[in-house]
Amino acid sequence: MTGRLSVVGLGPGNTKQLTPEADAIVSGAQVLFGYGPYLDRVAARPGQRRQPSDNRQELQRAEQALTAAAAGETVAIVSGGDPGVFGMAAAVCEALDRGPPAWRNVELAIVPGISAMLAVAARVGAPLGHDFCAISLSDNLKPWEVVEQRLGAAATAGFVIALYNPISRARPWQLERAFASLAAILPGTTPVIFGRAVGRQDERIAITQLSAAQSNAADMATCIIVGSAETRLIERPGGGPLVYTPRGSARAIS
Amino acid sequence: MTGRLSVVGLGPGNTKQLTPEADAIVSGAQVLFGYGPYLDRVAARPGQRRQPSDNRQELQRAEQALTAAAAGETVAIVSGGDPGVFGMAAAVCEALDRGPPAWRNVELAIVPGISAMLAVAARVGAPLGHDFCAISLSDNLKPWEVVEQRLGAAATAGFVIALYNPISRARPWQLERAFASLAAILPGTTPVIFGRAVGRQDERIAITQLSAAQSNAADMATCIIVGSAETRLIERPGGGPLVYTPRGSARAIS
Repeated sequence: MTGRLSVVGLGPGNTKQLTPEADAIVSGAQVLFGYGPYLDRVAARPGQRRQPSDNRQELQRAEQALTAAAAGETVAIVSGGDPGVFGMAAAVCEALDRGPPAWRNVELAIVPGISAMLAVAARVGAPLGHDFCAISLSDNLKPWEVVEQRLGAAATAGFVIALYNPISRARPWQLERAFASLAAILPGTTPVIFGRAVGRQDERIAITQLSAAQSNAADMATCIIVGSAETRLIERPGGGPLVYTPRGSARAIS
Repeated sequence: MTGRLSVVGLGPGNTKQLTPEADAIVSGAQVLFGYGPYLDRVAARPGQRRQPSDNRQELQRAEQALTAAAAGETVAIVSGGDPGVFGMAAAVCEALDRGPPAWRNVELAIVPGISAMLAVAARVGAPLGHDFCAISLSDNLKPWEVVEQRLGAAATAGFVIALYNPISRARPWQLERAFASLAAILPGTTPVIFGRAVGRQDERIAITQLSAAQSNAADMATCIIVGSAETRLIERPGGGPLVYTPRGSARAIS
């Protein structure tokens, strides 16, 4: 008998931003797979097993979860944010594509969640208010030249840019290079938002300008939003500024 | 006394994908503003007023909501999907930017939701599995040339593309032109996903190829995802194919 595999988005980390659908599926799973810190967000349940693994073992985790599901178990892989945005959904599809034909009989469900860029944007206003893109700065699986090319194309065409996986111990220099690439195209006054661990106890939000953006303001838990030339600030007496990109962003940089 | 304004994402439309945070804020509001069909998703509550308005009256709706909040009321504007992605958050920021200084004292909260592209992607696999962008095809507030320029830049640089606001009675030709622009750059076999009303009773998902994509397969409630040259299909015996973009998408089109 073939089981089920659900790839579940836990959202940014606050249970108020976890959908009832995701909550129910995680609760009903016989075995949970995931990166340790994501599994730690899920309350323990009697009889439910959990298989934590390291951050970079995504394909292996996907294979283990598919093996368990193909053997008849009800399995969930938990992912931070949305599993389809630089999360576990693509890794599961890759594993399934390469794996034994029997895996294609597994009942597979991808369960969406609030992705980090949406949560960060909401905290400061509406910086993604117009056309935008999401780019992973990790060059583990793609050449750095492709990252730079995409950053350049997006900034030139007037997209707001959300940067995922901005920095880690193994990838210390990429973010600084990305800021330099963008600063060659965009005004130095372009707003940049650093959003760390949004909705969690250690949340930290910082708003700066591209000319002043420092890569050491980010860590692995940070999502960065770089505005377009149209992105604006509204100062408010009572608190931090609002950042937004007007719905009518007019033109690309020619 | 100044009140509160929350701009709330209802998600794709299924209450299982509505966050507890959004649910609580909508329940606690004294007055709800929104496009009629979005308000219709919210259960009526005794004593809670609702102010439906037309789809295109976004700025006016924002102004009315800010006026009510500045007068001391607890106000929520409901938005489909995520309010920060082609939703009401940017319109509220625009209204606030142009409006009377008193509006800046309103306690403003943006409450994120599951945006349509995330829900559509989840239904078919992981088409947004690598770098992607979101583009509104509406040329009500930006010149069509900018839309075409962004489509071209995104496709050439290897982004998967989510198209919002693809078609309406007032904008009947833009989607066909967009497909033609993309077909000039991407292979005819590039997967295209039409996701309509995901999670609702009238959900309709269709997967086709760029060379066969027809604009009449979409309506106002449709979000379209156009793959990159790397996006792949996995055929499955039991159901529809999976569509995914590998995490290691290698290169832009040179």
